Amino acid sequence: MSVDAKLQAFSAVLPPPAKPAGVYKPVVVVGNLVYTSGHGPLCFDGTWLKGRVGAEVDQAAGYRAARQTGLSILSSVKAHLGSLDRIKRVIKTLGMVNAAPDFENHPAVINGCSDLFRELWGEDHGVGARSAVGMGSLPNNIITEIEVIFELV
Amino acid sequence: MSVDAKLQAFSAVLPPPAKPAGVYKPVVVVGNLVYTSGHGPLCFDGTWLKGRVGAEVDQAAGYRAARQTGLSILSSVKAHLGSLDRIKRVIKTLGMVNAAPDFENHPAVINGCSDLFRELWGEDHGVGARSAVGMGSLPNNIITEIEVIFELV
Amino acid sequence: MSVDAKLQAFSAVLPPPAKPAGVYKPVVVVGNLVYTSGHGPLCFDGTWLKGRVGAEVDQAAGYRAARQTGLSILSSVKAHLGSLDRIKRVIKTLGMVNAAPDFENHPAVINGCSDLFRELWGEDHGVGARSAVGMGSLPNNIITEIEVIFELV
Repeated sequence: MSVDAKLQAFSAVLPPPAKPAGVYKPVVVVGNLVYTSGHGPLCFDGTWLKGRVGAEVDQAAGYRAARQTGLSILSSVKAHLGSLDRIKRVIKTLGMVNAAPDFENHPAVINGCSDLFRELWGEDHGVGARSAVGMGSLPNNIITEIEVIFELV
Repeated sequence: MSVDAKLQAFSAVLPPPAKPAGVYKPVVVVGNLVYTSGHGPLCFDGTWLKGRVGAEVDQAAGYRAARQTGLSILSSVKAHLGSLDRIKRVIKTLGMVNAAPDFENHPAVINGCSDLFRELWGEDHGVGARSAVGMGSLPNNIITEIEVIFELV
Repeated sequence: MSVDAKLQAFSAVLPPPAKPAGVYKPVVVVGNLVYTSGHGPLCFDGTWLKGRVGAEVDQAAGYRAARQTGLSILSSVKAHLGSLDRIKRVIKTLGMVNAAPDFENHPAVINGCSDLFRELWGEDHGVGARSAVGMGSLPNNIITEIEVIFELV
């Protein structure tokens, strides 16, 4: 079953590809690696999930935001490559959480994105290396910003 | 027109290559990729642009700091490679802003660096993937710290 | 003298490989590059070095935490590759410090990790590009989180 088909089976409608908020491209391919820009939790209706985990929003909202961020990444990658079936595996994720200074569970938040990738590509190819950390602030006060390196088939 | 010549035409005098502030090299080449260390807004006279965007300094000062940081990166890369004409394109930028917790416009700050690269290499090759985020603190209280991956010709 | 032997000569007993705290792999190899996940200062007894540099802990404690983080990275890499002698050199380090907002000496903290790598692989191969920055928060309130890209022999 192709990844594009799996996404449909999950009823996960991808948000529209995010328009760059500055001077950058959402996706750049070099050799067999796909570098994505930092993406945020863009919703289907064009709004963003906002707030600081451990303050205005809780960890469960952070998890949902990370999953939504993952969907936004996939939307950009699909727009760039034509199909997500061109992705072989996840290499590296940098998961950045807009967190209160005393928040301590960033990995559980970023799992929202990582679980999505695992559902699509499986344990071997859908799980890569990762850092999950807390930022002092994020653009537009979004809950999470995540960048990923994928490998092409 | 070569990039080295363009830089001169812009009257953009590169600052001297930054001396490492710790145990690292400013630039490392592996295969066709050039990894730069995090650079800061080093000025021609050896001083640094300092402060927190949204607190002691404003967004416009942040933009200028990001551009100066870009010039410092170019200085290190030129010192390492001999000429900036060996750079083919920008692959990925991580733009880190020393920002107040409620600052929300990090992309506009990091554009200072990205606009510089676009002026030198154009829309296709001068604009790469990017993340722009807010840090809790930066070394020496500099306004921005930016690291870049370039591709060699 | 092999790196594995050097480590023994230093009496540096590696901590056990860290178990992933979320949905990620500690180490991923793609081509000749080794991407490590963000690691923390895991001690031999399974405890973590915790606190914020410039607040609950001082810079010297931060340096020791960064060195311990480096040992944890090496433990994961050795477990994945079988031997650290398969590593040719350090390409890039992202050193993230759990720091008070007014802390300014992140490079001196991350040197704890970078000095370790230099002792093992020497000035040419043990010192790579690097960023050292201050985070708003880190998982489990650990002092440092560090990710590294190595090149294989």
